[in-house]
Amino acid sequence: MPDATQDHPVMKDLPIGIDAAGMREEFDSMGQVAVPADKYWGAQTQRSLQHFSIGHDHMPKEVYHAYGIVKKAAALVNREAGRLPAWKADAIVRAADEAISGKLDDHFPLFVWQTGSGTQSNMNVNEVLSNRAIQLLGGTLGSQHPVGPNDDVNMGQSSNDSFPTAMHVAAVTLIDERLVPELAKLAATIERKAAGWMDVVKVGRTHLEDATPLSVGQEWSGWAAQLRAAVAEIERSREGLYELALGGTAVGTGLNAPQGFSKNVAARIAELTGRPFVTAPNKFMAQGSLDAMVRASAALRGAAVALMKIANDMRWLASGPRCGLGELKLPANEPGSSIMPGKVNPTQCEAMVMIAIQVIGEDTAVAFAGSQGNFELNAMRPIIINNVLHSATILADGAEKFRTYSVEGTDIDRDRIGGYVANNLMLVTALSPVIGYQNAAHIAEDAQATGSTLKAAALKSGHVTEAEYDEIIVPRSMIGEGVAGA
Amino acid sequence: MPDATQDHPVMKDLPIGIDAAGMREEFDSMGQVAVPADKYWGAQTQRSLQHFSIGHDHMPKEVYHAYGIVKKAAALVNREAGRLPAWKADAIVRAADEAISGKLDDHFPLFVWQTGSGTQSNMNVNEVLSNRAIQLLGGTLGSQHPVGPNDDVNMGQSSNDSFPTAMHVAAVTLIDERLVPELAKLAATIERKAAGWMDVVKVGRTHLEDATPLSVGQEWSGWAAQLRAAVAEIERSREGLYELALGGTAVGTGLNAPQGFSKNVAARIAELTGRPFVTAPNKFMAQGSLDAMVRASAALRGAAVALMKIANDMRWLASGPRCGLGELKLPANEPGSSIMPGKVNPTQCEAMVMIAIQVIGEDTAVAFAGSQGNFELNAMRPIIINNVLHSATILADGAEKFRTYSVEGTDIDRDRIGGYVANNLMLVTALSPVIGYQNAAHIAEDAQATGSTLKAAALKSGHVTEAEYDEIIVPRSMIGEGVAGA
Amino acid sequence: MPDATQDHPVMKDLPIGIDAAGMREEFDSMGQVAVPADKYWGAQTQRSLQHFSIGHDHMPKEVYHAYGIVKKAAALVNREAGRLPAWKADAIVRAADEAISGKLDDHFPLFVWQTGSGTQSNMNVNEVLSNRAIQLLGGTLGSQHPVGPNDDVNMGQSSNDSFPTAMHVAAVTLIDERLVPELAKLAATIERKAAGWMDVVKVGRTHLEDATPLSVGQEWSGWAAQLRAAVAEIERSREGLYELALGGTAVGTGLNAPQGFSKNVAARIAELTGRPFVTAPNKFMAQGSLDAMVRASAALRGAAVALMKIANDMRWLASGPRCGLGELKLPANEPGSSIMPGKVNPTQCEAMVMIAIQVIGEDTAVAFAGSQGNFELNAMRPIIINNVLHSATILADGAEKFRTYSVEGTDIDRDRIGGYVANNLMLVTALSPVIGYQNAAHIAEDAQATGSTLKAAALKSGHVTEAEYDEIIVPRSMIGEGVAGA
Amino acid sequence: MPDATQDHPVMKDLPIGIDAAGMREEFDSMGQVAVPADKYWGAQTQRSLQHFSIGHDHMPKEVYHAYGIVKKAAALVNREAGRLPAWKADAIVRAADEAISGKLDDHFPLFVWQTGSGTQSNMNVNEVLSNRAIQLLGGTLGSQHPVGPNDDVNMGQSSNDSFPTAMHVAAVTLIDERLVPELAKLAATIERKAAGWMDVVKVGRTHLEDATPLSVGQEWSGWAAQLRAAVAEIERSREGLYELALGGTAVGTGLNAPQGFSKNVAARIAELTGRPFVTAPNKFMAQGSLDAMVRASAALRGAAVALMKIANDMRWLASGPRCGLGELKLPANEPGSSIMPGKVNPTQCEAMVMIAIQVIGEDTAVAFAGSQGNFELNAMRPIIINNVLHSATILADGAEKFRTYSVEGTDIDRDRIGGYVANNLMLVTALSPVIGYQNAAHIAEDAQATGSTLKAAALKSGHVTEAEYDEIIVPRSMIGEGVAGA
Repeated sequence: MPDATQDHPVMKDLPIGIDAAGMREEFDSMGQVAVPADKYWGAQTQRSLQHFSIGHDHMPKEVYHAYGIVKKAAALVNREAGRLPAWKADAIVRAADEAISGKLDDHFPLFVWQTGSGTQSNMNVNEVLSNRAIQLLGGTLGSQHPVGPNDDVNMGQSSNDSFPTAMHVAAVTLIDERLVPELAKLAATIERKAAGWMDVVKVGRTHLEDATPLSVGQEWSGWAAQLRAAVAEIERSREGLYELALGGTAVGTGLNAPQGFSKNVAARIAELTGRPFVTAPNKFMAQGSLDAMVRASAALRGAAVALMKIANDMRWLASGPRCGLGELKLPANEPGSSIMPGKVNPTQCEAMVMIAIQVIGEDTAVAFAGSQGNFELNAMRPIIINNVLHSATILADGAEKFRTYSVEGTDIDRDRIGGYVANNLMLVTALSPVIGYQNAAHIAEDAQATGSTLKAAALKSGHVTEAEYDEIIVPRSMIGEGVAGA
Repeated sequence: MPDATQDHPVMKDLPIGIDAAGMREEFDSMGQVAVPADKYWGAQTQRSLQHFSIGHDHMPKEVYHAYGIVKKAAALVNREAGRLPAWKADAIVRAADEAISGKLDDHFPLFVWQTGSGTQSNMNVNEVLSNRAIQLLGGTLGSQHPVGPNDDVNMGQSSNDSFPTAMHVAAVTLIDERLVPELAKLAATIERKAAGWMDVVKVGRTHLEDATPLSVGQEWSGWAAQLRAAVAEIERSREGLYELALGGTAVGTGLNAPQGFSKNVAARIAELTGRPFVTAPNKFMAQGSLDAMVRASAALRGAAVALMKIANDMRWLASGPRCGLGELKLPANEPGSSIMPGKVNPTQCEAMVMIAIQVIGEDTAVAFAGSQGNFELNAMRPIIINNVLHSATILADGAEKFRTYSVEGTDIDRDRIGGYVANNLMLVTALSPVIGYQNAAHIAEDAQATGSTLKAAALKSGHVTEAEYDEIIVPRSMIGEGVAGA
Repeated sequence: MPDATQDHPVMKDLPIGIDAAGMREEFDSMGQVAVPADKYWGAQTQRSLQHFSIGHDHMPKEVYHAYGIVKKAAALVNREAGRLPAWKADAIVRAADEAISGKLDDHFPLFVWQTGSGTQSNMNVNEVLSNRAIQLLGGTLGSQHPVGPNDDVNMGQSSNDSFPTAMHVAAVTLIDERLVPELAKLAATIERKAAGWMDVVKVGRTHLEDATPLSVGQEWSGWAAQLRAAVAEIERSREGLYELALGGTAVGTGLNAPQGFSKNVAARIAELTGRPFVTAPNKFMAQGSLDAMVRASAALRGAAVALMKIANDMRWLASGPRCGLGELKLPANEPGSSIMPGKVNPTQCEAMVMIAIQVIGEDTAVAFAGSQGNFELNAMRPIIINNVLHSATILADGAEKFRTYSVEGTDIDRDRIGGYVANNLMLVTALSPVIGYQNAAHIAEDAQATGSTLKAAALKSGHVTEAEYDEIIVPRSMIGEGVAGA
Repeated sequence: MPDATQDHPVMKDLPIGIDAAGMREEFDSMGQVAVPADKYWGAQTQRSLQHFSIGHDHMPKEVYHAYGIVKKAAALVNREAGRLPAWKADAIVRAADEAISGKLDDHFPLFVWQTGSGTQSNMNVNEVLSNRAIQLLGGTLGSQHPVGPNDDVNMGQSSNDSFPTAMHVAAVTLIDERLVPELAKLAATIERKAAGWMDVVKVGRTHLEDATPLSVGQEWSGWAAQLRAAVAEIERSREGLYELALGGTAVGTGLNAPQGFSKNVAARIAELTGRPFVTAPNKFMAQGSLDAMVRASAALRGAAVALMKIANDMRWLASGPRCGLGELKLPANEPGSSIMPGKVNPTQCEAMVMIAIQVIGEDTAVAFAGSQGNFELNAMRPIIINNVLHSATILADGAEKFRTYSVEGTDIDRDRIGGYVANNLMLVTALSPVIGYQNAAHIAEDAQATGSTLKAAALKSGHVTEAEYDEIIVPRSMIGEGVAGA
């Protein structure tokens, strides 16, 4: 309630929460709606809950945290431009800060499967921030006064520009704070293990078949290189996400947003997040397509493709213990079987493989949805942001568990590895430049057919003396130096 | 066999719940683990929670409800075979019934991303039923006595056969109880609307371009036919799901399961569920592959493909209100825009399109995972059952909302529809058999080029008299009878 | 040229071929077009060649062979109905027979990437049959007289109903004549091999880890069962394909087709093909969707999923020869490496895995395209039929090569297999019902930790006597009987 | 260097071609094989033809042209290093140049579905260049003398490093020479059209529903921006392709390749192609994965996603002519229907949509295959390069046809566009900042409910005077300036 010296209400420092039971009346342009009295949301949120309670998929919290940043930035810019009184803006900013921190999460109940523009989630944010600001300013919840959800919280914005902006902010944040660090840690762990085993010679395998040797460290270095490349691609894919639609309003033209709004609000978001967000150079693309998000999803998929190869290699190399390849020993975190006593399984690898497949499947949905825009809107936003955030989350969490509970504790079985090297007929390849490919081939074939050692078959062939053989067939000298090839 | 004086514990009728705080010691073959004292789960569940808390995806509750049926059936068969004392079996059955009813849901906390066999969820069930049975029998929680998770609850079973059995039971149940009824109701609603509009002539559209007429009812009948075919395919896909792996135990040979176990336990499951489950004729396929589940997923996808076409057609036909096709009027359930006042959007259609895309994406993951079995196990079970149940759930819920909040309330704009029919140049097609295709083509081209009516252009051409024109060009007589074509 | 006793031209028995060079003028409703003088096609084919020469993907020949059947059936029905003079019909039938037999293949040059209805391919057929009939009747090529492409060859038809009809006929034919027989032969070969090895005990593997034993024959029986189920599903998917759109004409109403046309023409096609084709009960679905084709594609995918598992298992079991699993010996069809002498690789398995992935990818495209119909037409027909026929072709050919050059010549390494069985710690599972799961687990863990034999560890544990051990631990008795599980 | 007496054969300038009929004996390490006498290929090519004639998919010619560059570069480096005599190297280089130019295409007959390493295609190249060099040097075809396929043409190489090198060279070349130019030309055409219509105000559409206005040029600018971003991403994806595996030989260690080979040969390839190829920093990744190719495929998919949106928008905007949106007039390239005279369809748009879906499907196959590497080799190379080159080809050709035959000739219907603007109720949005969102909403709802004009409803509401209305509701002033939003 404004006092004598002020013509506006004063914000009080009230805790979050509404001390009320039963239902409260809220309204929107279509009329009155009763909402739970202890929730900040309004009429449109309640309508969405009624019409769209589909499955158990809720719009990810990260979207609302990012939306808090969007609303805060807009309020600050509107205040600076003199469109929004400072006292209103301050209350909105306070409420937005609470949304950003996750303290209002319980007031964002909507589902993924809703309007394709994300309008209902935008209105959910508008309504919650409006009512929270009203509460802070001593007003009546549901009155839309003195802070209205559309006219004040949504000032200069549309769902059409603000929702994709929140999508970009949410995706970049999750990528930066969770996914990239976890993938990098996994790569670093693999590199550390690789370094320790750089001189342990092992049999190579191509087509699953015995091939010329390499070192355990070299093999692991390839996995790490795949991850490093995947991380670099994810980081690069952020570039498209840095471009924000905000300021385009309804169809990209910026109607009802003041001059300079798009640039200023992007600058504010950059400042609030510490990340180089800018306004999108073409708002019609930024709102009519979700191409940048499709590309970010492809980058996540790239990590999944790499992780699948790595996890598969590890579980195959650890297969056994007595009837498989048995080169690696993975940590035994749990009993493996409900019926087979003493069984240990590569469960972290399996979880990672499943995660990789899920990410690839979700990326298919993202690309499909990305292609289905029409005219000034791609109305497939909720499915896209939900899949992208979900994929990023399970990749990050999966990488963390995989690293912590499997990769870090993995060891090698030097006896087994050495035994394979000694038996490996493909060592014959080193003879090839000396005696020719065809002669070398006949030696290997003879050894395999007769079950003899490679050396015996080589000497029997008459193409090489024992001294020559012993000089040439030295596995350690066959693996070159480092990881770059000759 | 217990005698009259009872050498075995007596089951008490205790409510669900453990009145304890802090942690309780549990053990498995790898040692001691502390678990929350108010939960029934044991050591292996706790290990899985530690190692696999990845994302927010929990193994669907439907899996545990189905697992209750599996454990109950196994206990009954083991009791009949004299392997499991009646008092033990009865306690397990009581606990299993509680699991089936959902009352133990809070005790099944595991994640989707775990061991690929589902062993951890199987052990979760074994541990919970074991401890609950122990409680009912007055024993000490965590003692595995007198009812052990492996030796008693899991008797004659492996995760390798019981988990896919639970998958099949869960999927069939959800399909029968939720998905098929909802799709059928949607089809019936569309059929009812179609019947009401069977004589309303409208312009046909092929390639998005004006084509010869049909009736609104005929158009809607096509959508209903798509749904009916999709339902029939889903029902047919249950046939593979009726075949159960249970009895194959570890690798399909049935080791440690008594003679006749597989047939008897399938019969019990059939009896408990009222559905025609049978034992799989080849257990090596039943455990080494998940092909039946891949086919069920394809059937779900078939419904998604149909629903996408239907929802797309509806939103396009409702586009406007003044600058689109405008033939349909969808119910306005909520304000459509945060910035554009009075806007109404086809939100239910959009949600359905997104659901369809999600189902198609998840099906891609299912097929991929289905291809990744190795030897005696496809270790991609959790990802497959999670996607199949998720797809079925959002299809069912989505169909319900779509029907209730959009299809049922949809009306037609007869003026608009009639106006299109009157203007439609493709009525010229009916002249084709009389004056030839080329002459008819020139009439239509002339009308479009000059902006004249079709009739004016036809008469101008000299190929037809006014009387002939009026007799032939009668839209109502061009739509044939019913839905089968000439 | 009609003579005195006849008022119509007489068909001459002229060979296929046009003895002309340079270009010939043809026309359609849009005007004159020059076409190669030695080709039967007309103006619209030529226009399509000009506008749509995209990539190297030509509409599959099978579509044109099937279209020959469609045109023949239509001509016969039109003749019977008295709409088409017998002499015209006979000439069309003669030309259609030539198309069916593949003799006119060179006259069907169009690309897959064309109009989405397939109209250009339909017109290609209409033009070629028209000109060929004109030639047979002594007329002038390009005159559309006395047999016109639209008015005669296309009589009572539209591309909208005839193209999906040709799609169904082509798909069913390829499935029946190539795919099902090849998959069945592969299954039979696997069953024959399985029967021969039904008593060879081998180590089971779950999670890639050693598990309880089964027989080689049992393992192979699982693969065969997968294939048999896949074949059954493909056969079942034909049911939707048996339903033909023909008779619906432009939008499903049957405009310009005479009464009874749809039923009669389906009966004719059934007669000509010997397959149970019927008219689709709802033409609006049959033309507005391609759902039956999407389901057929899913059935092909099911075979791919099974084949991938089988080929993967085989190449892993054959891995080595000295540093892999080495249980199977695949035929060596070619040198495996350009650098490693004597290397043999599982190349047929690799080809099959790639084919499986391709089929899964193409099925994704089919489902996507299947969802993109609008109103009275799904204008994604060429992409769908091309992918379905391509998938069926590479599956059939791949199965043939895989069977002929790999499966039939595969042998087992009994020494290796026996050695694994002897070392397999999971034999301990048989002790579990006797001494309990936990005790059994500790025995297996002790053996693995100390490197001892299972027997030594079991006796050391004190839970079992040597006599008991020797009676219980008999691998051959652990594999049950047959393939159904206990 | 041989002196005047010549101890080596002299290369003659012989034309391509073998004047022989029947069969010629060739050999490899497995024995003799008869090959067609008029072909240069040898034993291993012939074996592959026998074992892998699957479908009609031949390894793309671009792979062989690129392989020519690889073989030429290797020969030059080997000559410089003194490993390969100049006269041998010169003959190989001459033959390689012929391969590069496409003149030897008929001698590369192999199928895509072959060994997963591409060894058979590498050997095909080795054999053809060997025999062609032998011919040039006056030797006997099939003698492998004086130029052997393995020891000379393949010197210092393996399929494992040379095939992915050829893949990278082929993909970069096709992208640079065909795909990027065509996409850029299409973007430029769209930009040119956009510039011409930058002031034509039209109704915006979001959710397919009428929205606030924008200009035709702005709408088109969004499409162009999508294409420009897609091109940038494709160009960026080349970075991973610039890294070449060559020098890693069998497993990445560079065994049998001389010191410095990898760097030198990459430099030679860079020189020969004029593109910045370098040696891959980690050969184990370069051979064990195909991640760079998966990322390039994702970039192609990004273009497909954009093109699908563009083509869909265009065909919807052109729908009609009288019962659709009718804002655009596409060129009529051909009669649209075999039954409906005068019908014109958006066939180029449909072809483009199908191409987009195909590319998305093929990309799914690429990602799947990319995840299936094992250890030192991803043996899914042929499927990946075939799909990537195919996708790039149909995108490039499709973009060319779409531009030439549809976009360039597209015009707008100014009357129709203007009529929509005049009727558009969403102009009310401009009133919102003045009279509030709720009041504005009620005006729009009233207009739609009563069928009145927006102005009439606005004045009736009493919230705005006629003068105010006329000042505010000026569509042209609602579209902002340019493409960046406010």
